[in-house]
Amino acid sequence: MSEESDDLTGSPVPRREDEALLTGRATYTDDLVPPDAAHLTFVRSERAHADIESIDTRAAEKLEGVEAVYTWPDLADSSSPCVLPISTGSLDCEPPGHPVLARDRVRYHGQPVAAVVAEDGYRARDGVEAVSVNYDSREVVTDPEAAREEGAPTLFESAPDNVAATTEQGDLSKAEAAIEDADRVVSIDLENNRLISSAIEPRAAVAEYDAAADRLTVTMTSQSPHGHRGKLASTLGLPESAIRVIAPRVGGGFGHKGHHHPGEAMAAWAARDIERSVRWTATRSANYLEGAHARDHRTTAHLGVDADGTFRGLAVETTANVGGYGLGGGASMPGWYGGLLSSQYAIPAIGCRTRAVFTNTAPLHSYRGAGRPEAIYVTERIVDVAARELGIDRAELRRRNQISPDEFPYETAVGASYDSGDYEPALEKVLEAIGYDERTEDGTVESVESDDPDDGRLRGVGIACFTESTGGGFESGVVRVHPDGGVTVAAGTHSHGQGHETTYAQLVADELGVPMEAIDVREGDSDAIPKGTGTFGSRSTITGGSAVVESAREVREKAREIAAHRLEAAVEDVALEEGEFRVAGAPDRAISFEEVAGAAYGRGLSEDLEPGLEATTFYEPDGTAYAFGTHAALVAVDPATGDIEIERYVAVDDCGEQVNPTIVEGQVHGGVAQGIGQAMYEEAVYDDEGRLLSDSMAEYPVPRAEQLPDIETETTVTPSPRNPLGVKGIGEAGTIAAPPTIVGAVADALDVAHVDMPLTAERVREVLEE
Amino acid sequence: MSEESDDLTGSPVPRREDEALLTGRATYTDDLVPPDAAHLTFVRSERAHADIESIDTRAAEKLEGVEAVYTWPDLADSSSPCVLPISTGSLDCEPPGHPVLARDRVRYHGQPVAAVVAEDGYRARDGVEAVSVNYDSREVVTDPEAAREEGAPTLFESAPDNVAATTEQGDLSKAEAAIEDADRVVSIDLENNRLISSAIEPRAAVAEYDAAADRLTVTMTSQSPHGHRGKLASTLGLPESAIRVIAPRVGGGFGHKGHHHPGEAMAAWAARDIERSVRWTATRSANYLEGAHARDHRTTAHLGVDADGTFRGLAVETTANVGGYGLGGGASMPGWYGGLLSSQYAIPAIGCRTRAVFTNTAPLHSYRGAGRPEAIYVTERIVDVAARELGIDRAELRRRNQISPDEFPYETAVGASYDSGDYEPALEKVLEAIGYDERTEDGTVESVESDDPDDGRLRGVGIACFTESTGGGFESGVVRVHPDGGVTVAAGTHSHGQGHETTYAQLVADELGVPMEAIDVREGDSDAIPKGTGTFGSRSTITGGSAVVESAREVREKAREIAAHRLEAAVEDVALEEGEFRVAGAPDRAISFEEVAGAAYGRGLSEDLEPGLEATTFYEPDGTAYAFGTHAALVAVDPATGDIEIERYVAVDDCGEQVNPTIVEGQVHGGVAQGIGQAMYEEAVYDDEGRLLSDSMAEYPVPRAEQLPDIETETTVTPSPRNPLGVKGIGEAGTIAAPPTIVGAVADALDVAHVDMPLTAERVREVLEE
Repeated sequence: MSEESDDLTGSPVPRREDEALLTGRATYTDDLVPPDAAHLTFVRSERAHADIESIDTRAAEKLEGVEAVYTWPDLADSSSPCVLPISTGSLDCEPPGHPVLARDRVRYHGQPVAAVVAEDGYRARDGVEAVSVNYDSREVVTDPEAAREEGAPTLFESAPDNVAATTEQGDLSKAEAAIEDADRVVSIDLENNRLISSAIEPRAAVAEYDAAADRLTVTMTSQSPHGHRGKLASTLGLPESAIRVIAPRVGGGFGHKGHHHPGEAMAAWAARDIERSVRWTATRSANYLEGAHARDHRTTAHLGVDADGTFRGLAVETTANVGGYGLGGGASMPGWYGGLLSSQYAIPAIGCRTRAVFTNTAPLHSYRGAGRPEAIYVTERIVDVAARELGIDRAELRRRNQISPDEFPYETAVGASYDSGDYEPALEKVLEAIGYDERTEDGTVESVESDDPDDGRLRGVGIACFTESTGGGFESGVVRVHPDGGVTVAAGTHSHGQGHETTYAQLVADELGVPMEAIDVREGDSDAIPKGTGTFGSRSTITGGSAVVESAREVREKAREIAAHRLEAAVEDVALEEGEFRVAGAPDRAISFEEVAGAAYGRGLSEDLEPGLEATTFYEPDGTAYAFGTHAALVAVDPATGDIEIERYVAVDDCGEQVNPTIVEGQVHGGVAQGIGQAMYEEAVYDDEGRLLSDSMAEYPVPRAEQLPDIETETTVTPSPRNPLGVKGIGEAGTIAAPPTIVGAVADALDVAHVDMPLTAERVREVLEE
Repeated sequence: MSEESDDLTGSPVPRREDEALLTGRATYTDDLVPPDAAHLTFVRSERAHADIESIDTRAAEKLEGVEAVYTWPDLADSSSPCVLPISTGSLDCEPPGHPVLARDRVRYHGQPVAAVVAEDGYRARDGVEAVSVNYDSREVVTDPEAAREEGAPTLFESAPDNVAATTEQGDLSKAEAAIEDADRVVSIDLENNRLISSAIEPRAAVAEYDAAADRLTVTMTSQSPHGHRGKLASTLGLPESAIRVIAPRVGGGFGHKGHHHPGEAMAAWAARDIERSVRWTATRSANYLEGAHARDHRTTAHLGVDADGTFRGLAVETTANVGGYGLGGGASMPGWYGGLLSSQYAIPAIGCRTRAVFTNTAPLHSYRGAGRPEAIYVTERIVDVAARELGIDRAELRRRNQISPDEFPYETAVGASYDSGDYEPALEKVLEAIGYDERTEDGTVESVESDDPDDGRLRGVGIACFTESTGGGFESGVVRVHPDGGVTVAAGTHSHGQGHETTYAQLVADELGVPMEAIDVREGDSDAIPKGTGTFGSRSTITGGSAVVESAREVREKAREIAAHRLEAAVEDVALEEGEFRVAGAPDRAISFEEVAGAAYGRGLSEDLEPGLEATTFYEPDGTAYAFGTHAALVAVDPATGDIEIERYVAVDDCGEQVNPTIVEGQVHGGVAQGIGQAMYEEAVYDDEGRLLSDSMAEYPVPRAEQLPDIETETTVTPSPRNPLGVKGIGEAGTIAAPPTIVGAVADALDVAHVDMPLTAERVREVLEE
């Protein structure tokens, strides 16, 4: 990217963070044990919907080693409301926020009811068992359609029909009119299954309190230290400057670690109350019970399509289950999911109505993809159904409707402004790679070596195109050159798998002409930089990467001025080449970057140059960057068992310029694995009493490596004009593309229009039996 | 200082830091106990000058709980030389730096020879006792004059005459010629006694090592976190970005905690070696043995003066004892002491030659005042002697030679550029206050109530004028407004008694129109800001204060632009009044500072405004600010015992504008107490074998409260034109003024020209017996 050297940016540099991660030397939140640490555990509701009649904490308080037992009145008496607020305003009702401990009613199984703080984790758990809670049960509703029916139990008085929010995007009546005008109406009913974030590290927090300064340091599993600082400040009633949030190594986020949960807030509140450090680490089951859960949409869609395959209009009605409260913006989040319904296609009229409904299930929030998988799933599934009904090849139908490269920037009928795209090459590439045109009558592909067409299994191919909105909001990036020439790069993003330590170092090294080893990338400390936004929504390279590059460029210009002063040359005659500033035409007049760094801090600076060599940039992109791609899969379904084998999976992604192709590939791999998890295995299941049955990894089966195919990746490069790097996000693409790809392939194999996820053997056999 | 409100700046706001300090809630370095902490203690040399023949560490290594025993070869084998470098270049020789552990020779009593790291401090001390060192003694020299004589033992081969540096300031031959021309030559021989810094908290460090990142965090008793970061990086051979230095609460600095000592470096090196945290806290005696020691000048001075009292020339020859190595710049530091020899007087010719000499004593470095007390002591003492010889009143002689207010900026004969001054009012004020003209024949002052002129004691009055160079170098100041309107102020200075938390908050509150409570002042973390210089040389308010004010002004302007955008008004029509931005002429169009802060981070910012509301300033003053003042004391000397009572002490100081008069007064009190300590009690004493006899508080008597008079303070205000606040430093004034004031008073009482410090009863009786 820099004129001086573009060796590093764009290269598959190995991830610098991996050595520490793979050798077990990385420090996670739970590794931190302050000398004065007490341990926090929660009493969680065993009921899904009940009034709390009384809580008896006396036995627990008497136990040796139990330091404190808290219930709602303890928090309510404090200066702050201690509620996790619902932060987005587009709700129909004013539901109360999620209290850190249940106030007078519990609304989902696993809701925190009381908290025990003790000398160690064992004693804390003993304390939890000694707390007795009297509940008066209420009628339970876990199904969002049922929750809207007359006579259904109501969760919040302010939302008598349990509807949290009703949102329309695009123009539903225009879409309906366009559909009526079309030669044919294609319809689909589908469910997007409820998922649970299964990051390898559960949520955790260690709150340390400086009583003299009334200042909290909360080390926690955060994707967004500044975001959590603000949320904790709001819940605890403290100014943001009184809280420092540190996110050390974090073992996976997926959105889940950007939300505000009771655990971290309770630990921070308790540390301040007892004036000692409080540690809390969620068990796997607590993490599953409390959420955030994700997806859980029921959708009916209609596509108006002419006989030649031209899409005329798309109308979508979705009921989203936001659970017992909705965390943060979770209750209103489904409201903006429709923005991607156009996928890669020129659809002149689109309308989408979403109802977000409270039920007695764990709160909903964003999860890798966050609305984009749900939207693309609707469009790609109905396009497959349309192809089947029209008798047009699925690839061909897509090709006919794709937005052409000369139409960008393209405004979709649902209000999204696509920055750039060249969709057909990605589609052709994936068709070529998967051998789409080599399919035989029975769906096998001759080039697939593992194929044994005579094994009795049913073959199918699936393809899905997608677009993805990436980046957004501002991010800050600091580049600080030390007097010895060492460089510290800091940003408000946080890497918990994304490899920022490597990519940001590549970017800055090129800008400054210094080796990567001279660059130290730091994230995860709300005190280290003015304000950051965090990592989510495939935003980090676009926003954080651009911010550090802009800061690096500013630093380079300042360094050049210093060099010019020291070299007694005009600034415009000085250039940074091979790690030193040289005077044009005088090759022996040069000064090293290190010498300039030393000079910047007072040794030989001219009077009109301010000391120091650092820059802070708040970067905000010029609009959203839309990544895209097309994935395809070949599957073989065993009709006897219902088992599905993914014989091949090919992903062609376009995330614009790539800072590090290896990291891009890794992100695609991870996303596809998670998308396959949704398509084939994962589902949060509640029983009739609202008890979460899938509350462990045994019951909630994330895919194992052996269940995943080799994921073949290819890319095209269509730069974004909306940021200086030309990049687009890639972190979530796989979770968007994989579900419609896999479902399309299995529907093809089974010769049906649609099958709902997850594609368990049981469900496949049911379809075959029909 | 701000147009909106000047309520806080200039007011005697109580120190915000005092509650935590006085209630024992402040956290000092030694309070920090990482869970994996090991403890470091040193084996220290029992000899003052010896070759190390062998060190047997085997017995120590076998002790249970001893983790490691280190000697020089362990450090030498590491990648770095592990030497504390002598950082100032103006030496005659190239003496080796101070090795962290003695290399092959020890050069002063107490030099670290080996280090023991163990599970706890007791086991570490057991380990120290189990180490046996074989020394081959060398001849010892502790007197700097003796060290320069033929045949004296040599400390470093590179300095065969033991002279580390010879420096000339001003013009010695011109001064000598001027003296020859004068009507009279007045001469004096004097000693400035060797002092030891006696901060209430000994030096300490806790080094924590992150092996995965190869990064050290060193929490330590530092006046200058960035300075120590650089010094540690140099000694350990690490880039600065790999080291974070945190200075928590620090119990007094006095220069001593700005130096680079073996303890902190050894702790950091060991933490990296054993990959666990290492704690070290100096014992009082270790602190005294190892230094840094201070002052220790022998001076001969000649003043040429005409019969009417006009000063014609001043020639000064000084031999300074820099000890066994000189720490950092300590070996060359005496070389610039002569810059203040002009004191408040127009002396047309001044020359000063200083020889800094190595001896077998603890290394020398700066100590509160750092050269200025030594210089002013020479001038003020010789002026007293001149008055006595000429028969001119001491005050009158000073008055006749003072630089007049219209001569500023004034360039002294020794190259100092005085910024501003109005010396006579301060002199008159002190004379008035002390009752100078009320003295009776026998030296008593009638207005002194405690006077009993018939008690047989000898009365004397002393006066001393002084100037003081304050400020210098750059400092960085960060003002960061959080989205909730809270403000964090950070600076590279460090407060260890100076009250920056209060003064910086006053300054910024006024600039931003917010209450002090909204402002959180943070210092002491090298990671928190780009680069700082630290606190020493009476520089913090000038440099750090100006830096935070300039940042606050920048922030206010940005906030005003945001407010104007939100109020749909022109920027020039918007003013900050009473905590809100108001549109001129439209009193109901206003937006609060908090709302602007929220808007700055993305909620309603215009397109052409970059998000964020913070500024970082690197401020460097437009030259040195010269504080000044005149102090006076009345003493009563008991001829029978030699005891001295200070009956009154009046300090009139001028430090320009005062941000907080209470803190100014406190600084004067502290400085005078320390100056009285030097004048009357303190002295580092070595025996003939080079053993430090004054190695404890019992032997090195810092003054107790009961030994100090009520210190009466008054001020005049002559702003400095060289910084935006008009301030001058005040932290060291008392240490400069008190020694010549007290010695002058006692000489007056005893009716002699001069008595050397410390004015012990023994010395007073010796003078009386003569």
